[in-house]
Amino acid sequence: MANSLYDFGMIGLGVMGRNLLLNMADHGFSVIGFDKDAAKTGALETAATAGTTVKGVAELAAMVQLLERPRKLMMLVPAGQPVDDVIASLLPLLEQGDVVIDGGNSHYTDTLRRVKQLRESGIHFMGIGVSGGEQGARTGPSIMPGGDEAAYAKVRPMLEAIAAKVKETPCVAYLGKEGAGHYVKMVHNGIEYAIMQLISESYTLLQKGAGLNNDQLHEIFKNWNQGALQSFLVEITADIFLQQDDKSDKRLVDVISDKAGSKGTGKWTSQDAMELPVAVPVIDTAVAMRTLSGYKEQREKAATLYTAPETTIHTETEQWTKQVHDALYFATILSYAQGLAMLHEASRDLQMDIPLPEVVKVWRGGCIIRSTLLEVFTQAYQQDAGLPNILLDKGVAYLVQSVVDNTRSVIAQAAQAGLPVAGFMSALSYFDAFRTGRMATNLIQAQRDYFGAHTYQRIDMPGTFHTEWQQH
Amino acid sequence: MANSLYDFGMIGLGVMGRNLLLNMADHGFSVIGFDKDAAKTGALETAATAGTTVKGVAELAAMVQLLERPRKLMMLVPAGQPVDDVIASLLPLLEQGDVVIDGGNSHYTDTLRRVKQLRESGIHFMGIGVSGGEQGARTGPSIMPGGDEAAYAKVRPMLEAIAAKVKETPCVAYLGKEGAGHYVKMVHNGIEYAIMQLISESYTLLQKGAGLNNDQLHEIFKNWNQGALQSFLVEITADIFLQQDDKSDKRLVDVISDKAGSKGTGKWTSQDAMELPVAVPVIDTAVAMRTLSGYKEQREKAATLYTAPETTIHTETEQWTKQVHDALYFATILSYAQGLAMLHEASRDLQMDIPLPEVVKVWRGGCIIRSTLLEVFTQAYQQDAGLPNILLDKGVAYLVQSVVDNTRSVIAQAAQAGLPVAGFMSALSYFDAFRTGRMATNLIQAQRDYFGAHTYQRIDMPGTFHTEWQQH
Repeated sequence: MANSLYDFGMIGLGVMGRNLLLNMADHGFSVIGFDKDAAKTGALETAATAGTTVKGVAELAAMVQLLERPRKLMMLVPAGQPVDDVIASLLPLLEQGDVVIDGGNSHYTDTLRRVKQLRESGIHFMGIGVSGGEQGARTGPSIMPGGDEAAYAKVRPMLEAIAAKVKETPCVAYLGKEGAGHYVKMVHNGIEYAIMQLISESYTLLQKGAGLNNDQLHEIFKNWNQGALQSFLVEITADIFLQQDDKSDKRLVDVISDKAGSKGTGKWTSQDAMELPVAVPVIDTAVAMRTLSGYKEQREKAATLYTAPETTIHTETEQWTKQVHDALYFATILSYAQGLAMLHEASRDLQMDIPLPEVVKVWRGGCIIRSTLLEVFTQAYQQDAGLPNILLDKGVAYLVQSVVDNTRSVIAQAAQAGLPVAGFMSALSYFDAFRTGRMATNLIQAQRDYFGAHTYQRIDMPGTFHTEWQQH
Repeated sequence: MANSLYDFGMIGLGVMGRNLLLNMADHGFSVIGFDKDAAKTGALETAATAGTTVKGVAELAAMVQLLERPRKLMMLVPAGQPVDDVIASLLPLLEQGDVVIDGGNSHYTDTLRRVKQLRESGIHFMGIGVSGGEQGARTGPSIMPGGDEAAYAKVRPMLEAIAAKVKETPCVAYLGKEGAGHYVKMVHNGIEYAIMQLISESYTLLQKGAGLNNDQLHEIFKNWNQGALQSFLVEITADIFLQQDDKSDKRLVDVISDKAGSKGTGKWTSQDAMELPVAVPVIDTAVAMRTLSGYKEQREKAATLYTAPETTIHTETEQWTKQVHDALYFATILSYAQGLAMLHEASRDLQMDIPLPEVVKVWRGGCIIRSTLLEVFTQAYQQDAGLPNILLDKGVAYLVQSVVDNTRSVIAQAAQAGLPVAGFMSALSYFDAFRTGRMATNLIQAQRDYFGAHTYQRIDMPGTFHTEWQQH
């Protein structure tokens, strides 16, 4: 290989960059990685599978020289300024027709800006979302590419090779123009926030509500993962309850602080949804609850001021577990519904042409929100690729109707027992508002016209009206 | 007056600008207004009270020439580019020490930028929030000024004269540095969104839940307005139910479309809260529900797909009305609590030094969210001006505890009966999470460490930890 050129280059050899590159090498591509940190270039070469072609270099120019033209390279560096810094260093080294991929969690507006910036130099810039964590990067992530479709064709063989496979279909597809890849990844993460919040609420309902211990919780989540709730997040939740702490005789989950962190992509989803606007209240709620978890000192003080209600859960444990299962199933569907409705709206409003049927197929494997539910949604989009909200699909409606009554019972009892289920409540109230042709917002329009002369529309004739409201 | 100079100038003579100026003239100040539209300058002069000094001019330079120095002038033009355009026209005409006020709904970051821009020319730029609608502007609005404190001293006499009065105290006070005035107004509007959503949910619970007609609803809201719920929004809601439609034989509220509009300040509150971050889920929910109301076509389709539950409200009407009252009271307190917590956090994080005790005093009169509850909060901040959340005040805690049980009953029944109460649910779930020292977010931290090596903290020792989680 000494004089040959490499198929693919990677800038940034953190664990994600290294694992993606090794994954590519395992599939027969010759790869080269750049990192200023010699320990990381060394680690890359050491970890390579025998017989694969993997090289690490400490100079960017050296790597660029060693790439087959048109060059295909990806950066995996922290979002924000570091991406712009890499682009500035790369630009003098590249030639027309080269493809540069940002595989990190950049905001789509940054990607849009960079696509335009590099287009001036004839370079194809693609924003690609990658989900699956460290392990997924190594063995098969879910890949969400957006940008120039012709550029995608050049990197498609590599991406299809390394992606997760579901029934032999790779979990990667062209997902739309310019910033679309990062937009889809952002919404993926918003849905991820929502489902994680919902699982934590199920945990509360079973642990605090029914007094179940970690062994019992493990069994329940393990069972759930063999049924309609089968998903990566339910699967690892089952594992978590069994993990022993190596610093005490407790289970690890019981000594972990409840102050939850975030990397901000859930927040972006909510903020950008409000911008469109489209309603994603379960995601908003998940973001708010992570934030609230950080206000530990205030919560501890509040705990001394407020007494819990005396009501407890009165349903027998086995039935309660079934009801909680149904509530989690219901609210999980609602989380996907809101995220996908956001993509539908963004696709049109931001001219990204995001193919929703492809999105749900790509999400079926490799990513954090993979679940059997995505097969249901894949079928729904096969019926109608332009579905504005999956709740409007008859198959989905059937599933939702089958679990909504138990969801109502769970929420009613949680409200009485003082168990916080913000995500479940948010899902149900969205659903109950969504399924009505007449919301109570006519009153809000009346109020706005009363105090601010903001005008209103009528149900019986077109036009915009204002009334001089009478005081009584 | 022919050769005298005027005390105060106004740029933009829409209904708000005109009314504020006439209000000022009624209090003995000589005022001059500029608008390119001759109809508006004419309307200003025509509407002036006899014996007051009010002039309208169609040239900006003419108005600036006629102002006493240092000049004091306000613009009331649409937020965004129009404000920058006015500044660009004004700048060559002004002198060091002049005070320019933006009285519109500008975003605080724009105000910050403009304060810095004008400071270079020695001009004091102030962002001032004004609430009260058309009528309030004419007879006494709530005024939220932020910016240079020395500049505030120059306009303080005028602002105090025109502001609403509560027990002879004017509803205006210096509310902090640079963008603080517009920040406080933004959060005011966020709380306004939340309370309007909650009132619309009470309407649903009484109308759809208990089958009450508009006359009955009028009586209920009228009664509520004479008790603990006394407030401008409850008061006008009572009026609204009696308003006759002049185009049909119906009540007007029944023919108004449920597609609710918004001017975006509620959205800003939620987006900026996420940025801090601080949790304001009732406001987020109100924003989401207004958005959802716009998706009328989808909702009408969903109404044909999903059947309502067969359960109905089983509480007797009088008791149900009392329970809904308590739920509205509870959730209204929570809305203020979230908005005020946001101001507390923003005051520190964005170095605005917002005096919370002054904010609640200013809100007691003139503005859309004025209510007797603000007296309660005023007392709470008299006890502790640095209160991070009013829920931590003992007096507030007593009130909350007195209504939370009925809130739980209302939500439990609404969930079973399929009545959408997103705001109430959001308030209760925030409360139940806030009043616990241990949330279930430890599980979320475990999940994040499992799939993304994001690390976690422990409850029993300092530091940051990562575990190689075992699959089972």
